[in-house]
Amino acid sequence: MRRTEGESVICSVDVVLLTLREERLCVVLLKREREPFAGALALPGGYIHPTEDQHAGDAAARVLHDKTGIVSPYLEQLATFSGPGRDPRGWSVAIAYYALVPDHLLPQDDPDVQVLPVGSLPALPFDHRDIIEVALSRVRSKSQYSSLPVYLCPERFTLPQLQSVYEAVLGEPINKVSFRRKVEELGMVEALAGEMEQGRANRPAQLYRLRPEYRRSLSLVERGINARG
Amino acid sequence: MRRTEGESVICSVDVVLLTLREERLCVVLLKREREPFAGALALPGGYIHPTEDQHAGDAAARVLHDKTGIVSPYLEQLATFSGPGRDPRGWSVAIAYYALVPDHLLPQDDPDVQVLPVGSLPALPFDHRDIIEVALSRVRSKSQYSSLPVYLCPERFTLPQLQSVYEAVLGEPINKVSFRRKVEELGMVEALAGEMEQGRANRPAQLYRLRPEYRRSLSLVERGINARG
Repeated sequence: MRRTEGESVICSVDVVLLTLREERLCVVLLKREREPFAGALALPGGYIHPTEDQHAGDAAARVLHDKTGIVSPYLEQLATFSGPGRDPRGWSVAIAYYALVPDHLLPQDDPDVQVLPVGSLPALPFDHRDIIEVALSRVRSKSQYSSLPVYLCPERFTLPQLQSVYEAVLGEPINKVSFRRKVEELGMVEALAGEMEQGRANRPAQLYRLRPEYRRSLSLVERGINARG
Repeated sequence: MRRTEGESVICSVDVVLLTLREERLCVVLLKREREPFAGALALPGGYIHPTEDQHAGDAAARVLHDKTGIVSPYLEQLATFSGPGRDPRGWSVAIAYYALVPDHLLPQDDPDVQVLPVGSLPALPFDHRDIIEVALSRVRSKSQYSSLPVYLCPERFTLPQLQSVYEAVLGEPINKVSFRRKVEELGMVEALAGEMEQGRANRPAQLYRLRPEYRRSLSLVERGINARG
């Protein structure tokens, strides 16, 4: 029976949830409650619930909400990972998503929710390390051409703060003048009239926010944020 | 039981197989042998065979080979499509791939294998029309920056032939001088010493082939093949 073959595959979703903490790009890992690998840190993940989910992205959003309290972040499908060896329970398919959220939306004192810099992760179960690598590569290349990193910012931010977010994601310094030009070209932020950053020693800086039309979609530029020449 | 939930999802692979026929970008559709939609034209697809396939890409290559005779083309994961409504049998996941092959490798006289221009497709079952649209968008944007369209060429081709392949994929004319410069920058082809195109009225043109190192991977340029300005 063909149908049986289709059904003998385990199908789940996994989410690479990225944030910025102490100016470093971090991934959110959860302590697994169940076997296999109970107690180990791993990506948030779970089964599709056919009676609830309208598509796999719904399952990813539901899993994130249930396990971290995050509500409808910018969530995009990354790729699907599959094979007989990635899960000890059998031949499995993981539809992987990635999401970017500002740190302040994450649980801050839950010992089962760890926020770790992407450069110093522990050994991870399944193929979660591979999934994270693919997510980082995708986020970095997409950030060169789009407003993607803004989803890591708090609701109100200054342009120097936005630049340091881009630098943390891209892993390299950006020229200030060309960055300002790119931000203008992207047209993704708007100045908050009369609102200046408070409580800093130097001259207060203008505060900005993401334009509402880009809350669920990206703005794009043709040439990279940090293109040479 | 969580495990049961994961298993109650139908999981399969679908392949958008693209080729060039009469200078038009075409998709290969097969007459379905079974229900649902027996007799309708649809994308080549099938279940994962857990005992044979090492990952979903293996299943896609196996399905292509079984149904069209094509052996190991350039095959890349596109995206995963899922939900309760796309297949009448139940909540389903289709891991979609795309592949590019030269026309001469396809069955030419099999009435169950149809090669149709992407601009004039019939109504298709499941969400196959959506899958094709996503594949076309991916192939077109990737072709702007890479050697991808070369996989549509026969083994030996002239530069004017290569240019017309790019034009068919991108759906727009390309300036000849800038195209030659991009081909040089991509470094993807090599001249076949002493081999010239035969049997044409005008001056015979040099024949080229894809460099062996790009048979399974793409060469890339930073600025688009057809970038303005």
